[in-house]
Amino acid sequence: MAVQLTHGPGTWFAERFVSETGSEVTVELSLRGRGTGSPHRSPGGPVVAGGDDASPVTLSTLRARLREPLGDRRLVMVVDGDRISPVRASEPGGVTGLCSRSTPEQGRVPAHRAGDPVRAGIPEHGRVPRYYAVKTELLALVRALGEGAALPAERELAERFGVSRVTLRQAVSELVLEGRLQRRHGSGTYVAPPKLVQPLSLMSYTEGMRRQGVTPGHTAITVEELPADDGLAVDLRIEPGAPVVHLERVLLAGAERIGLESTYLSRQRFPTLVEEFDPADSLYACLQRRFGVTLGEARERLETVLATPREAMLIGTNPAMPMLLLHRVAYDVEGRPVERVRSLFRGDRFSFVARLRAEG
Amino acid sequence: MAVQLTHGPGTWFAERFVSETGSEVTVELSLRGRGTGSPHRSPGGPVVAGGDDASPVTLSTLRARLREPLGDRRLVMVVDGDRISPVRASEPGGVTGLCSRSTPEQGRVPAHRAGDPVRAGIPEHGRVPRYYAVKTELLALVRALGEGAALPAERELAERFGVSRVTLRQAVSELVLEGRLQRRHGSGTYVAPPKLVQPLSLMSYTEGMRRQGVTPGHTAITVEELPADDGLAVDLRIEPGAPVVHLERVLLAGAERIGLESTYLSRQRFPTLVEEFDPADSLYACLQRRFGVTLGEARERLETVLATPREAMLIGTNPAMPMLLLHRVAYDVEGRPVERVRSLFRGDRFSFVARLRAEG
Repeated sequence: MAVQLTHGPGTWFAERFVSETGSEVTVELSLRGRGTGSPHRSPGGPVVAGGDDASPVTLSTLRARLREPLGDRRLVMVVDGDRISPVRASEPGGVTGLCSRSTPEQGRVPAHRAGDPVRAGIPEHGRVPRYYAVKTELLALVRALGEGAALPAERELAERFGVSRVTLRQAVSELVLEGRLQRRHGSGTYVAPPKLVQPLSLMSYTEGMRRQGVTPGHTAITVEELPADDGLAVDLRIEPGAPVVHLERVLLAGAERIGLESTYLSRQRFPTLVEEFDPADSLYACLQRRFGVTLGEARERLETVLATPREAMLIGTNPAMPMLLLHRVAYDVEGRPVERVRSLFRGDRFSFVARLRAEG
Repeated sequence: MAVQLTHGPGTWFAERFVSETGSEVTVELSLRGRGTGSPHRSPGGPVVAGGDDASPVTLSTLRARLREPLGDRRLVMVVDGDRISPVRASEPGGVTGLCSRSTPEQGRVPAHRAGDPVRAGIPEHGRVPRYYAVKTELLALVRALGEGAALPAERELAERFGVSRVTLRQAVSELVLEGRLQRRHGSGTYVAPPKLVQPLSLMSYTEGMRRQGVTPGHTAITVEELPADDGLAVDLRIEPGAPVVHLERVLLAGAERIGLESTYLSRQRFPTLVEEFDPADSLYACLQRRFGVTLGEARERLETVLATPREAMLIGTNPAMPMLLLHRVAYDVEGRPVERVRSLFRGDRFSFVARLRAEG
């Protein structure tokens, strides 16, 4: 399909993005500014950034419902001055009579909800992999169905969207990775509940989950003693090689495995920890009760990583699932290091919230 | 290969993980506790958590070097009481004479650096996809080479590790996604610099980058006016449908595109913003200077998502790259909402740090 644009003086179009779904053609036009560097606003129309040549700005969307697919014929539109005219079904040197026009939607980037990707993530040129087009349609279906609803059968969805099952599966897989859908073994695919919300604070995992009305739990994987490596010795302010207790536990939200946490503490400072601590309980509660430790500060670093095969197995998820990884060193109220922690959370099930205040 | 364990009364083994590399067999045994809920420690041996039945704990690793690969014959080990005996080459009803034993390495999970995945991410059963084994070797190479070094040619590496180029490429791809390697177009693959570190604070992106000695910048993509949807109206405390300015900008660190940010502000509150604000500059500096706004608090939510095709194109990365997504509503010192922001950061280039203090 070829699209030709003509326009009057005073407007340059940098990009013309066309997508075609059945007999519905969408054409989006981007205005390239003139290097003035100052944004301007067309009266009554959209706010338009002049910007520099590297800043195309989507100006308008036209939709035309055609009586038949375009095939390899050309759709020609004429643009006058700053405003875009309705689609015109005649043009120099082209095919005519293709369009029965709907009212063009002028001067507006498609509305989007703040917080969602702009343009539903579809580039201005409109070309996306087929699976991604299916993903955006699935996402609309997910919203319409609501939490807990079963997704229709794969075959039915593939037919509905007119794609192969391989393409459908790729779209479903991304929505699973992002936590919008959940696969239940031997049962099907369901609309996932919202992500859990853990405060970035000195609050323990146990306390953070309880405040959301979720029952926290831990499954111990490793309880061992290791000599401190150089980095750990610096963090815990102990000698390199001094004994460190390493607790590795799967984090549970109800019955669901949602993370894996490794905690390192000085054995000299907490000599009876292994005997006194039940790994199924809250470590912070034990440190407070048995060792009189009150936390005063923590330094955290948060990044995203892919799950290793071992982590994926222990948490019960796919390898290479994007995870949120939190590194923490916590100090008591006297400023002495208490623990170093590596907490891995399922990216599809977890988010962090923080309330930040001005310093001083 | 089959492995059979027998043991005396008083110890239950929950898991037996076996890996075989050529003639080297590693067997790891997990002890299932007896539901006493109290951890115990075998004298002189490893720290062992009793825990409940849901808490397998890795107890010991035995290594046996065999004279020939096991094939489908059975290796049988006998475990006495609480301690694991050396591999014994005789057993009831099994094949004998297979093992010439090395000294068993008892009571220790392989050492690992705090902050890195335990066991380098390799499950206790030792079975990992070929590409993952290559990935762990590549990671060691990356550390040895150091930042900025060029990775040897693909063909050379594939030969060195004895894998196909397809397998090698999968390992390299994951390290690229995780920000350990960087592909430079037409040049090769290099050891990536450490991730940038952005404070989770009221500090602007501009200020956060400057403190790391990085020159921040912005490229304007969209400057437009939208009617507030219901969610945005609540967040900004305006009427639904009231005009909102949406600024969409690519975030730059030096010349590198590392994020994409959409900011929404009330047009009624900031009527001359579009005229006065140069999108290449810091928005916070403009709000302070031109509108006298001092920020007092922000509420943030952080999660991981996959880049959409449009975002990947604007940021110049791969679609489906894991990203860090930060939602923010910022308030001035009088508690009035100033902006709602959606900031997307490349997961391979970005991390967040926070310093948390006890409440009150």
